[in-house]
Amino acid sequence: METDGLRLYGYWRSSASYRVRIALYLKGLEHELAAVHLVRDGGEQHGLAYREVNPQGLVPVLQHGQRTIRQSAAILEYLEEVFPHPPLLPVAPVDRARVRALAQLIACDVHPLGNLRVLQQLEREFGATQAQREAWNRHWMALGLAAFEALLHGDPATGAFCHGDSPTIADCLLIPQVYNARRFGLDLTPYPTVRRIEAHCQELPAFRKAAPEVQPDAPVQG
Amino acid sequence: METDGLRLYGYWRSSASYRVRIALYLKGLEHELAAVHLVRDGGEQHGLAYREVNPQGLVPVLQHGQRTIRQSAAILEYLEEVFPHPPLLPVAPVDRARVRALAQLIACDVHPLGNLRVLQQLEREFGATQAQREAWNRHWMALGLAAFEALLHGDPATGAFCHGDSPTIADCLLIPQVYNARRFGLDLTPYPTVRRIEAHCQELPAFRKAAPEVQPDAPVQG
Repeated sequence: METDGLRLYGYWRSSASYRVRIALYLKGLEHELAAVHLVRDGGEQHGLAYREVNPQGLVPVLQHGQRTIRQSAAILEYLEEVFPHPPLLPVAPVDRARVRALAQLIACDVHPLGNLRVLQQLEREFGATQAQREAWNRHWMALGLAAFEALLHGDPATGAFCHGDSPTIADCLLIPQVYNARRFGLDLTPYPTVRRIEAHCQELPAFRKAAPEVQPDAPVQG
Repeated sequence: METDGLRLYGYWRSSASYRVRIALYLKGLEHELAAVHLVRDGGEQHGLAYREVNPQGLVPVLQHGQRTIRQSAAILEYLEEVFPHPPLLPVAPVDRARVRALAQLIACDVHPLGNLRVLQQLEREFGATQAQREAWNRHWMALGLAAFEALLHGDPATGAFCHGDSPTIADCLLIPQVYNARRFGLDLTPYPTVRRIEAHCQELPAFRKAAPEVQPDAPVQG
């Protein structure tokens, strides 16, 4: 399978784009970035041009040659199937299920509730102030990270990473969520296993290259 | 692989439990139901007994012998890997990605925002009335189903079901969401492909046996 022609539509601070960047770098896959600015001019993701790429108006989308792959979790599974080395899922079904459950805890139970469009709707419908919107976001992140910590802590399947001693899609999901947690001022003290794994991930170039601040579409640091 | 020892912790009206029930029936897998009442006594899912099954306090959980599988999407992938016939995912990676993206559109972008605990938090934090909570839920369902319809409509990969002419995990996710949409009074007129596929699914015994109202823990119809 050719690696030419991988193009990622994403945004530097989009947590779902960040997940896919980590996986691409872990697998050593060259790719082109097509930046979609989620805030400028009311959001480029709502424009007609991008709606042709994704009628849902969300990032990320991966194009692989003529193929268009939507939804970050589906993109990670696609990359795993088409570019299996190095693997980001273990071999045994029960272990794969554990990794996917950790990933989905973030993807389904935490991240959607603090998404930009949700915070905007809270403001529109309930007049939520910025402080209230940030507290709302922290509430779900705290609940989710507590559950994530409980699933990691004391489980012998947990290793240097979320599952064993090499990174999996669970780590691809966890690290962007921890980044968001810091951004919204959540105290991470109650999640020591999460913090240990995050520190370990940040030692790998793939995670550092995927970080929001070093993306070409990130604003220049002052 | 033994099919003995499949036990589903769920709740009749839980949309995520409903997804797993459909998959179990489509694959013809006998299973025991362990009902977790999400409302009575403040919610059995918060009790100590259930917290041992799932520290996150959410349903569904599948036990397969000694294995505990959490998160509905991870459970569906597990069932697919361990009990591959009949398949609920197509063969080619690009097709598998399409099915997973449809499933995740529901699992990540629609369902989490109308979940019971989210509606409760809207009431607690913003004093949202029942009418406002239901409008909030309909807002995200309308957005999500419009995107789902756009991805189905005119795509030659769409068949009698979401992908081709046999049911996949995309249908396992769609049907419970349509059930919720009806329950919350969403007008389904704008989603003709969704409605056509739903009608087709309801012809299959597996979908009918998985319906909330016929579950043993559902209240007796008056």
